[in-house]
Amino acid sequence: MQVEVRVKLKQQVLDPQGEAIRRVLAGLGYSEVEQVRVGKLMLLEVAGGDREAVRARVEEACREVLANTVIEEFEVRLQ
Amino acid sequence: MQVEVRVKLKQQVLDPQGEAIRRVLAGLGYSEVEQVRVGKLMLLEVAGGDREAVRARVEEACREVLANTVIEEFEVRLQ
Repeated sequence: MQVEVRVKLKQQVLDPQGEAIRRVLAGLGYSEVEQVRVGKLMLLEVAGGDREAVRARVEEACREVLANTVIEEFEVRLQ
Repeated sequence: MQVEVRVKLKQQVLDPQGEAIRRVLAGLGYSEVEQVRVGKLMLLEVAGGDREAVRARVEEACREVLANTVIEEFEVRLQ
């Protein structure tokens, strides 16, 4: 089963990488880009046919290791 | 307008970061995770109301700077 994990910084956490990208874009003329936030996208191939079981396991993996839940939030999307 | 940019390694490009994550997961007991590919997620706030113009500009920015099109592919999703 294809599973997409999206990890983003929480809204209240500063994102200097995103701000750096915004400044580079502005310098290249893309001044209409007013904000950039950077996250991670992880595309997992997971064995197993029970969608809710797969979702629960991947969420557990997110909490344990894939995301830093102090500053990040994650979302699991089954394809 | 909220725009999501997804940048992934092309399918034929090796992803050692994803493979490292897969091995860590396997070591923690998540052996059902058979493959991991890592990409970038960029969430842009873009001024402008013309959806197709915004899409065209963001795709231009991807080709110019946000993605390395030699090894990466990108996708632009308007919210």
